[in-house]
Amino acid sequence: MPFTMDISQFKSPAFLINELICRQNIRYMAEKAKISGVVFRPHFKTHQSVEVGNWYRQEGVSAITVSSVSMARYFADDGWDDITIAFPVNSREVDDISELAGKIRLNVLFDMAEQAENLGKKLTHETGFFIKIDVGYHRSGIEPSDSESIDRILRTAEKSKLVFRGFLTHPGHTYQAGNKQEILAILSETSQLLTELKHRYQGRYPGIISSTGDTPSCSLAENFNGIDEIRPGNFVFYDLMQLRLGSCSFTEIGAAVICPIVSVYPGRNEALIYGGAVHLSKESLQNPDGSRNYGLIVPFTDGRWHSPEGNDYLVSLSQEHGIFRTGSTWAKTLKPGDLIAVIPVHSCLAGDLFRIADCGPDSYRVRIV
Amino acid sequence: MPFTMDISQFKSPAFLINELICRQNIRYMAEKAKISGVVFRPHFKTHQSVEVGNWYRQEGVSAITVSSVSMARYFADDGWDDITIAFPVNSREVDDISELAGKIRLNVLFDMAEQAENLGKKLTHETGFFIKIDVGYHRSGIEPSDSESIDRILRTAEKSKLVFRGFLTHPGHTYQAGNKQEILAILSETSQLLTELKHRYQGRYPGIISSTGDTPSCSLAENFNGIDEIRPGNFVFYDLMQLRLGSCSFTEIGAAVICPIVSVYPGRNEALIYGGAVHLSKESLQNPDGSRNYGLIVPFTDGRWHSPEGNDYLVSLSQEHGIFRTGSTWAKTLKPGDLIAVIPVHSCLAGDLFRIADCGPDSYRVRIV
Repeated sequence: MPFTMDISQFKSPAFLINELICRQNIRYMAEKAKISGVVFRPHFKTHQSVEVGNWYRQEGVSAITVSSVSMARYFADDGWDDITIAFPVNSREVDDISELAGKIRLNVLFDMAEQAENLGKKLTHETGFFIKIDVGYHRSGIEPSDSESIDRILRTAEKSKLVFRGFLTHPGHTYQAGNKQEILAILSETSQLLTELKHRYQGRYPGIISSTGDTPSCSLAENFNGIDEIRPGNFVFYDLMQLRLGSCSFTEIGAAVICPIVSVYPGRNEALIYGGAVHLSKESLQNPDGSRNYGLIVPFTDGRWHSPEGNDYLVSLSQEHGIFRTGSTWAKTLKPGDLIAVIPVHSCLAGDLFRIADCGPDSYRVRIV
Repeated sequence: MPFTMDISQFKSPAFLINELICRQNIRYMAEKAKISGVVFRPHFKTHQSVEVGNWYRQEGVSAITVSSVSMARYFADDGWDDITIAFPVNSREVDDISELAGKIRLNVLFDMAEQAENLGKKLTHETGFFIKIDVGYHRSGIEPSDSESIDRILRTAEKSKLVFRGFLTHPGHTYQAGNKQEILAILSETSQLLTELKHRYQGRYPGIISSTGDTPSCSLAENFNGIDEIRPGNFVFYDLMQLRLGSCSFTEIGAAVICPIVSVYPGRNEALIYGGAVHLSKESLQNPDGSRNYGLIVPFTDGRWHSPEGNDYLVSLSQEHGIFRTGSTWAKTLKPGDLIAVIPVHSCLAGDLFRIADCGPDSYRVRIV
């Protein structure tokens, strides 16, 4: 399906992008980075789209972040020549990484010396690397105080064409924060930890930088003191999770999944939509009453989604079924064949499920222009 | 990527099917249906594969179930000519349904008269329909006691080329059952409710049938008294959810996702795998201690996955990252570059993420033969 199509043709779930909003989100973040004097290296895993990539190019972006070797190859083929793969080196892909490093300016990530060993012996071209630091999210990375592991990576890398670029982190624990202050406190602590590391190593490695990136802190921060590079990704679309965190307002959300109403069950204040886990992912949020929320339902008319009418959300998802609890007066008027928009809980995962090149016959990705 | 490939080539997450196990699962269910005198109309949403479909053909299966119009079209193109779309008619797809009904013997589902009205006026060929009954799952369907809604559908359908085939349900609440007895009690109640409905309407509509289908009850049942047709799907692969429910044994699980170990963190008894929500979905189970489980990790050697070594499971997933809590002695010996197998929580969703035709360059679907 083409990237633009007649919205009235929607028959089955479609991922809809509002180009104006996405471009504004990109411009705002690019300008904030510029004013703050940090490099803006956006994460492309959220959209995985050559066309959305071009919107970044038009805002002066030339360096990007991806989360897999195949994604790096995909964007390198589109002319992006400065890419950081922000996922620790997978030792089974060192040949692919080495090949790619011969074509573009590539940076990789290590959090174990074994990774540097495995990649280093394959490299025939200079390749940058960051050491991944765990500043509290505990997904991957080395503890900031663990100099032994850091030094082991640096010693291993010295024997090869690897070039140390600095310290990188993803403070994903901002997603668990309770409010804006907590998010900014995590950014501040992140900055302090990375700055200390940089100061400790920059004598031996001049020019190393500190890199961080998560949409909540990059959206809320007024400055990036101590940080040299930011790598947010989700902010291009935002989503319900970011709205809940306070990282964005509703009008900054740039993507929604358009779904048909299939049945209505007035007796239980529910409706069935054609839209399930294969379109939205099973990412969920907890409502204040303890129930799960798989997406916020809003009106969709004249080819655009609108502000929420009330407490209308998806209470369960199976493969293609979505059950929608009709809270508002508007929701109770819906009938089979009507279209609604779902603001997804996590736009990265919903977007991945609709990748243009990979879509099946009942999937579209379209944009409002 | 081809459906069969050299397993030693695995570099990134791969969906691996054990053909022998899957064929045994198909044969066992086909034989049970035959002995019980019920029609076996397996659900193809689990595998969505023409090749796996052929394994069913070889066991004498000629009628199938799918969950979308596009899936019906996909299998019709492969020569399947008796298909039930077990999802209530989406009023926006009535032209597509009508077109398909001109090519194959098609059955659709209604749980509202509006659906029958919208489809009926488009049909140019005879099309079967079932009335979807809600026997307690509360996802879609009409309450068994709601004769008014049932009769409204039947009256609406009479004006068109629609032919009433019977009553259909999906007792998905078996997935919330605590033990085998509860699952069988749900099947028994389902059978009773459908039989009552059939008896009430078969005078006016001779030849109508009752159809049910969910993997837990179809796997555990020793007979299907009162049921005319079964439509299980997941049983071809099974998964961790079914293992927990007791619907299968570990040796009956026919699919796993093979992932590389990327990093190990002995200090926190965790490891990072290349394998995230885009490969496994975010479906999870609750462990006895209240923690979440996104997949069971088992050894993978000599091109085969093996029995669990201990309490090794995924505790969190992000887009491409999976964090694996290393419980067993074996798990603590793993190093970067090793391959492990993940028994997915829900094989239908994991399988969907690896659809052959739609896979990106870093996705494979392969089989052990």
